Amino acid sequence: MACSNPELEHTTQIRVRYQETDQMGYAYHSNYLIWFEICRTEIFDMLGWSYKNVEKDGFLFPVLESNISYKKPAHFDDRLAVYSELYFNNKTRFRVHYKVIRDRNLLATGMTMHAFVREKNRKPCKPPAEFIQKLSAASPSTAEEFCQSAV
Amino acid sequence: MACSNPELEHTTQIRVRYQETDQMGYAYHSNYLIWFEICRTEIFDMLGWSYKNVEKDGFLFPVLESNISYKKPAHFDDRLAVYSELYFNNKTRFRVHYKVIRDRNLLATGMTMHAFVREKNRKPCKPPAEFIQKLSAASPSTAEEFCQSAV
Amino acid sequence: MACSNPELEHTTQIRVRYQETDQMGYAYHSNYLIWFEICRTEIFDMLGWSYKNVEKDGFLFPVLESNISYKKPAHFDDRLAVYSELYFNNKTRFRVHYKVIRDRNLLATGMTMHAFVREKNRKPCKPPAEFIQKLSAASPSTAEEFCQSAV
Amino acid sequence: MACSNPELEHTTQIRVRYQETDQMGYAYHSNYLIWFEICRTEIFDMLGWSYKNVEKDGFLFPVLESNISYKKPAHFDDRLAVYSELYFNNKTRFRVHYKVIRDRNLLATGMTMHAFVREKNRKPCKPPAEFIQKLSAASPSTAEEFCQSAV
Repeated sequence: MACSNPELEHTTQIRVRYQETDQMGYAYHSNYLIWFEICRTEIFDMLGWSYKNVEKDGFLFPVLESNISYKKPAHFDDRLAVYSELYFNNKTRFRVHYKVIRDRNLLATGMTMHAFVREKNRKPCKPPAEFIQKLSAASPSTAEEFCQSAV
Repeated sequence: MACSNPELEHTTQIRVRYQETDQMGYAYHSNYLIWFEICRTEIFDMLGWSYKNVEKDGFLFPVLESNISYKKPAHFDDRLAVYSELYFNNKTRFRVHYKVIRDRNLLATGMTMHAFVREKNRKPCKPPAEFIQKLSAASPSTAEEFCQSAV
Repeated sequence: MACSNPELEHTTQIRVRYQETDQMGYAYHSNYLIWFEICRTEIFDMLGWSYKNVEKDGFLFPVLESNISYKKPAHFDDRLAVYSELYFNNKTRFRVHYKVIRDRNLLATGMTMHAFVREKNRKPCKPPAEFIQKLSAASPSTAEEFCQSAV
Repeated sequence: MACSNPELEHTTQIRVRYQETDQMGYAYHSNYLIWFEICRTEIFDMLGWSYKNVEKDGFLFPVLESNISYKKPAHFDDRLAVYSELYFNNKTRFRVHYKVIRDRNLLATGMTMHAFVREKNRKPCKPPAEFIQKLSAASPSTAEEFCQSAV
């Protein structure tokens, strides 16, 4: 995951739920996608266009692709930092890259790619004006620092 | 759970998924509600009014109450029989009672109570005519036998 | 749920995840049990004997019973307060009662009952001395106030 | 996903649970990983070394990597075929490739990569002799046909 020039950066705090564990004693591997989703929700909060309102305004941003690389397991009650970077380079989709970190240890990296879709007809659409506007108004965060220091 | 006079009986086969386990090595306790839901889905199949079509026809049957009594744990890969009985006595709601059984051992019992709701306005409504009709057409199953022999 | 004389009270903040919604547009009904579990985790934090350490010390507190009464639906992104009361009256088990509240609206009430079990042999055991000790040291919280004002 | 020379092929039938839907009306995207896991469980059944026994015999096969490409959404009650191919080429890990298919429509493709780990010390280990033996004894299935016809 390149640390250069994301449109937006954000870090979410996650505490691993008992329900998220499996009998290996690890957080089950599909939960990372759920944690990524929480991170995206908070990114939209930061933008001032909450994902709840994205849907109320008639848009959906479904996942087109996901990938995860699991490096070290997470356990019950772990406090995780999920650091994310939003990229909007190709203009018809956006990507979010993630790092799952526990005490400066990199547990996993991941990515999700998203389409812009009209809720009404479930067809791909142009990036909503509000998205572009909010994104350009967002100042690159201080996460640079985090990105360099972590891991 | 009384074995007398349910409107309908049905048994679903469930195989415990790895994802459903927790670090205790048991099936996490909220999964029973999901298994109950699968059982209800199959009950509506039996009625000839699949729950998918219930919703297409403009109804929702949300859960009003649930309870579960956990007697013995379920484990990964267990083959469970979820036996259920549908009761429609009070005519404004319906209840389903469940027994979770593994090899003649009763693992859990449970109940869910459901309302009839119009999808449009999300308000309680009368039991759909189709529900009553389908239910009265359904012959009490041969589950009596099962009910007596199991556990 | 009686507001009288719980051993301990606690309120957890929950934000409904997108993953927790279903196609009705509501938080799926099994998630309440997961939220209750989060609440219990925090109760053990309060006691100074985190549930992670409970298990490290060789104990499990599995769920024996659960019930939930759903009064109003929860939605994506809702901020919920899950208020809980721990009761340890009968001395061989403990119960926790829950209220799920959104903006002074009571969405649901629930209960879980728990056994004390030795991790080693998975047999019921006496309440761990640490549990009793920690519990009696815990001062009844200021949640009385909350209990009276809410709902 | 290449259709050439997998060690083993298998197709699992999945019926989308109501719990797996989200408020978009789609099967939530993390569930695909759970369906993949069910497919792997059945692959180990086919091998005659059930994953339950893999763990009893002291091994774990945790996920190192996962990726999914979502092409078309799955819905409640959909009957899905999850077709999978197991590859064991590099001899220290194995990969499984997946296709999620509904009525000859390709909904998604995916991959998971797995390590061989000793349960005791949670360290990577050589592929278990039983795994290699079972795998070489397994005749390539008739899934070729499926692979060609599907999608």
